[in-house]
Amino acid sequence: MTYCCGILVREGLVMIADTRTNAGLDNVSTFRKLHVFDRPGEAVLLLATAGNLSVSQSAVRLLDEGVPDPADETIVTRLVDAPNMSVAAHLVGAAMRRARTQASEGFEQSGVNFDVSFLLGGQIGGGAMRLFMVYAAGNAIECTIDTPYFQIGEHKYGKPILDRAIGFDTELYDALKIGLISMDSTMRSNLSVGLPLDLALLRRDALKLELSIRVDSSDAYFRDLREQWSKALKAAHIAIPRPPYGGVQRP
Amino acid sequence: MTYCCGILVREGLVMIADTRTNAGLDNVSTFRKLHVFDRPGEAVLLLATAGNLSVSQSAVRLLDEGVPDPADETIVTRLVDAPNMSVAAHLVGAAMRRARTQASEGFEQSGVNFDVSFLLGGQIGGGAMRLFMVYAAGNAIECTIDTPYFQIGEHKYGKPILDRAIGFDTELYDALKIGLISMDSTMRSNLSVGLPLDLALLRRDALKLELSIRVDSSDAYFRDLREQWSKALKAAHIAIPRPPYGGVQRP
Repeated sequence: MTYCCGILVREGLVMIADTRTNAGLDNVSTFRKLHVFDRPGEAVLLLATAGNLSVSQSAVRLLDEGVPDPADETIVTRLVDAPNMSVAAHLVGAAMRRARTQASEGFEQSGVNFDVSFLLGGQIGGGAMRLFMVYAAGNAIECTIDTPYFQIGEHKYGKPILDRAIGFDTELYDALKIGLISMDSTMRSNLSVGLPLDLALLRRDALKLELSIRVDSSDAYFRDLREQWSKALKAAHIAIPRPPYGGVQRP
Repeated sequence: MTYCCGILVREGLVMIADTRTNAGLDNVSTFRKLHVFDRPGEAVLLLATAGNLSVSQSAVRLLDEGVPDPADETIVTRLVDAPNMSVAAHLVGAAMRRARTQASEGFEQSGVNFDVSFLLGGQIGGGAMRLFMVYAAGNAIECTIDTPYFQIGEHKYGKPILDRAIGFDTELYDALKIGLISMDSTMRSNLSVGLPLDLALLRRDALKLELSIRVDSSDAYFRDLREQWSKALKAAHIAIPRPPYGGVQRP
């Protein structure tokens, strides 16, 4: 399994991805799911992947090396050369469809799930900073200020804190912090999402990575965040008085 | 959808169920999913149901009127007459299998999902208080002190707070409070789980209902709990310092 979230606020974009993959519970590995495609000063794109690892990796390779144009396969376009974010989202969709078709050829009967979903965020030239969720079929939806985040993978455990705490005007490093809390909630309840985490942050109009690091179990800040959040939740429910309810009503 | 949880602590048992059912998003209704079967002073059982409503209701009717013995259909046993909790869990499983078979006869092609899952908790005579989760196939698992709660239905959003806050030594009305917080988290993130809530509470060895009420949107305590929890979560994430991270590492 996987959990990735992308948060697009007024000041910029945060993307966080775990690194745990598993083929069954007895085959657990670490793979990078957050990828950077950039030409500093001109374009910077972040891509987070969830789902079948072979399809995801094939799609990422295609985006790195160039996605063939269906009308003329000799023409290939690399993600980093996309002229704008709409074309970039389209390229990601095309790479996903192509990788999925290749992976499933001859394996129709295998029962393997070749589904994938990606998050693509970034900014190209003078265009707006954008965040897309791209589905297995290659179609995409775009993040708006009403709900300024997307999640892929195991999204439910980490959604409540995003729903409550993230708004378009949330400060950029607060968004990163809330994304890390969302990750913590997911990792506590689902063993298939695990450390280390990759995280990246883009400030709007900077056209370069401001932050791109890996956080593992030795990271003091993340350890403190987990402990503080746990303590605060405990204090929060202890502070609420016990229910004053009594009586037996028969329906 | 549905969300029900049952919590079995040292002092007793709490069960909470929402009441929203939906056949598609455009057909939403209110139905009771928490049922009481009792002979005060002798036996008290709580049953929470999730899944296909027609199957759930048929099973509850069978348990109320008597589940036929497969070996001799003229012999029927009502849930309230079960001699102990193990037999009660077995009866619930038998009623579920029977109701499911009846519902699916002739409808194999309909594509309708006839799955159900139930929580059964309670105490009979001098026996121990017990909590079971009964699956569609009729098999059951029993709650132990290591993980003193079960959930059925839309369980993910409300699981983190149970994981963090519930232990076997949690006070009974604190368990009720934490169950209500878990309900609140679920209702905020999933529209198919909704008010009013039915809740019931049994004190160990009392052999009668201590509490059985319906909580709707006008309930002042639950309104306050939701607001206080929301404020406390906000304060909790604000109190955590922003990440000190910086730098760009290339993989």
